[in-house]
Amino acid sequence: MAPLTGNLRINSDRLWESIMEMAKIGPGIAGGNNRQTLTDADGEGRKLFRAWCEAAGCEVGVDQIGTMFATRPGADLEALPVYVGSHLDTQPTGGKYDGVLGVLGALEIVRTLNECGIATRRPIVVTNWTNEEGTRFAPAMLASGVFAGVHELEWALDRRDAEGARFGSELERIGWKGDEAVGSRRMAAFFELHIEQGPILEAEGTDIGVVTHGQGLSWTEVTVTGREAHTGSTPMKMRLNAGLGMAHVLQLVDEIALDHQPDAVGAAGHIDVYPNSRNVIPGKAVFTVDFRSPNKDVISAMVERLKVGGREICERLGLDVEFTTVGGFDPVEFDSGCVASIRNAAKRLGYSHRNIVSGAGHDACWINRVAPAAMVMCPCVDGLSHNEAEEITPQWAEAGVNVLLHAVVETAGIVEGKDTGSGD
Amino acid sequence: MAPLTGNLRINSDRLWESIMEMAKIGPGIAGGNNRQTLTDADGEGRKLFRAWCEAAGCEVGVDQIGTMFATRPGADLEALPVYVGSHLDTQPTGGKYDGVLGVLGALEIVRTLNECGIATRRPIVVTNWTNEEGTRFAPAMLASGVFAGVHELEWALDRRDAEGARFGSELERIGWKGDEAVGSRRMAAFFELHIEQGPILEAEGTDIGVVTHGQGLSWTEVTVTGREAHTGSTPMKMRLNAGLGMAHVLQLVDEIALDHQPDAVGAAGHIDVYPNSRNVIPGKAVFTVDFRSPNKDVISAMVERLKVGGREICERLGLDVEFTTVGGFDPVEFDSGCVASIRNAAKRLGYSHRNIVSGAGHDACWINRVAPAAMVMCPCVDGLSHNEAEEITPQWAEAGVNVLLHAVVETAGIVEGKDTGSGD
Repeated sequence: MAPLTGNLRINSDRLWESIMEMAKIGPGIAGGNNRQTLTDADGEGRKLFRAWCEAAGCEVGVDQIGTMFATRPGADLEALPVYVGSHLDTQPTGGKYDGVLGVLGALEIVRTLNECGIATRRPIVVTNWTNEEGTRFAPAMLASGVFAGVHELEWALDRRDAEGARFGSELERIGWKGDEAVGSRRMAAFFELHIEQGPILEAEGTDIGVVTHGQGLSWTEVTVTGREAHTGSTPMKMRLNAGLGMAHVLQLVDEIALDHQPDAVGAAGHIDVYPNSRNVIPGKAVFTVDFRSPNKDVISAMVERLKVGGREICERLGLDVEFTTVGGFDPVEFDSGCVASIRNAAKRLGYSHRNIVSGAGHDACWINRVAPAAMVMCPCVDGLSHNEAEEITPQWAEAGVNVLLHAVVETAGIVEGKDTGSGD
Repeated sequence: MAPLTGNLRINSDRLWESIMEMAKIGPGIAGGNNRQTLTDADGEGRKLFRAWCEAAGCEVGVDQIGTMFATRPGADLEALPVYVGSHLDTQPTGGKYDGVLGVLGALEIVRTLNECGIATRRPIVVTNWTNEEGTRFAPAMLASGVFAGVHELEWALDRRDAEGARFGSELERIGWKGDEAVGSRRMAAFFELHIEQGPILEAEGTDIGVVTHGQGLSWTEVTVTGREAHTGSTPMKMRLNAGLGMAHVLQLVDEIALDHQPDAVGAAGHIDVYPNSRNVIPGKAVFTVDFRSPNKDVISAMVERLKVGGREICERLGLDVEFTTVGGFDPVEFDSGCVASIRNAAKRLGYSHRNIVSGAGHDACWINRVAPAAMVMCPCVDGLSHNEAEEITPQWAEAGVNVLLHAVVETAGIVEGKDTGSGD
């Protein structure tokens, strides 16, 4: 095997031009993208991506849920491939980089290796997972979930969008239902580059996030019940104010999360009070508490304290309270070997880097169940994502893809004196 | 003048039958009433009421905003009349007693005096104020507000309902636009009986509330602004959680009201967070704080402390906050003479009674600006009102109307040996 040196770098301009070219498909109204899964725009984006992959010498396979696998052959015909990629679908008012950077960064690896005449022992497979976003067809990370055995294929194909359209029918309509059985491929490793979608790297001025864990999540819907009453004619001591109970519980959520620093988080993004009228004391408050941590035990402990403390608060105020688990997944610990190759790559290339926990779900979180996997993160402006104003700099993208390149190539192995071109 | 003794009592069965008869017009779907102002049902209710008044020997006048005045003549042709009444219009899902008890209780006074052959020095005028509820055409207490000079007549007639219908046009359509100039009548006094719409009297087992004050109100809309961010990928210390700021302010509201007991109240019935999504930290929270007190200075002090304390809270959490006054009225101090006659009536009749502050607005609150006025309250089940399940007992109604009768008759004065009937 040949040594991998810090001299190997991607072509940053080519990467950026491809991102901008892809962004022309399914443009948003405010500078971002609306290229939701299985729409005509998604089909068009896939066509452009396949054309680029084929121009780079890859053969493109498609599985029965539409995930695309573009293979650059390896020298060892027996070796399992290294997979690298993310997703090309976007939120309805999404940005140009969420997912796209990971797919086109993977393609840039192939282009760079072609240009440098570098052969690898293992094949490299650039991957575009179908329906990562989950806004049109819930849940998110649908195709990678089927691939990893989390969901059944038939169940996935039966998902419906808000207009009642069936996932499987839409997949056929846009012409991207393939023949490959989903999950039939075996992987030496899977790498995914993604924008952070959080504020840490930018705030610290750090180039690279080495993602060691994916946070686990628990969503607890809390229903506080008091008694609707007129805000004027009900004395303070005779009130059963569900909104006040909620206020106390929201502060408890904050206290709980602060007691599990640095990684745990907690907040309620969804809050409704009833009847929500200026002169009626809320008789009911319903809100969803989102607790996350890379440690499963911490999540359990936080939820338990919410329930015990929430009951104490509501009992003191004469209110009823109920807790319902409405969502959740376990934390992910990424493969230590894959994580190490990402960290080594950042070191070799001289980028500032830090361990980081992914707060959001990603395809790599599911794939980590069936193959060694890890993620690279690069900063994004103000941590903003799922928003047309999502922004990154070409330099951030370049650093992320260079690290991805080195982690992939180190895992795939360079074959000395061998070119993947027309042979010698 | 003849003495007024505790022997004079209304006919409780007749009162109750009339209430039940009126409730047949504009029935609700759950046992209450939907007889909103200026609907066909309101017109039908007015017709029945006029027929009853005329059968009781009254002459009915109607003013240009549709308020009905049914006069039982007095012996002294120079004496200003005593007015007594409330409103027949209801909420869309209203009860059978809110307003109706006050109007039909007033009519029962006339019927009782007729039956007993009692003449009064002053005329007694049974009054049905137009559009007290204000749900179809805002604001509430519209006709009494014009009568008292709070609103201009033309402005009132130009109010629109949700479908765009004009108040003045609807008043003409149902045939109840009269000729009388609004506010042209002079009153010796105005008395109003109303259900409490709060829980105090029932909880204490007290028959009669002697209403000394109407609470003043201030509505402050509070807008807390933070930064929308992903609940997973934003560390605790980098959050600007508008929902958390709101939670602290809601507790402050409670503390402030508790510091001004026994009469002040405070709460937020209207609460909205944005974007109200389970995985987005609220970037904005908008809620309306309702403070009430019978003391104007207390209201000002509470609002001031909300602003100072709210700013401190939000500054500590890195949030912005703005306060906007979106409604309010000054406290009402009812006429001490009228209040005393109500208290005397309760004593004379042997009913348990206590001073009470009206938490809601009533026609008497506006009329108190242009004439001596006061109110009687009777209990209602669970303090429930503005709800089809609103309920009272015939005994509570009887006690309230007996007190109203005595207060009105004491103010009007009994003429000895003179009958209003066919003469002697």
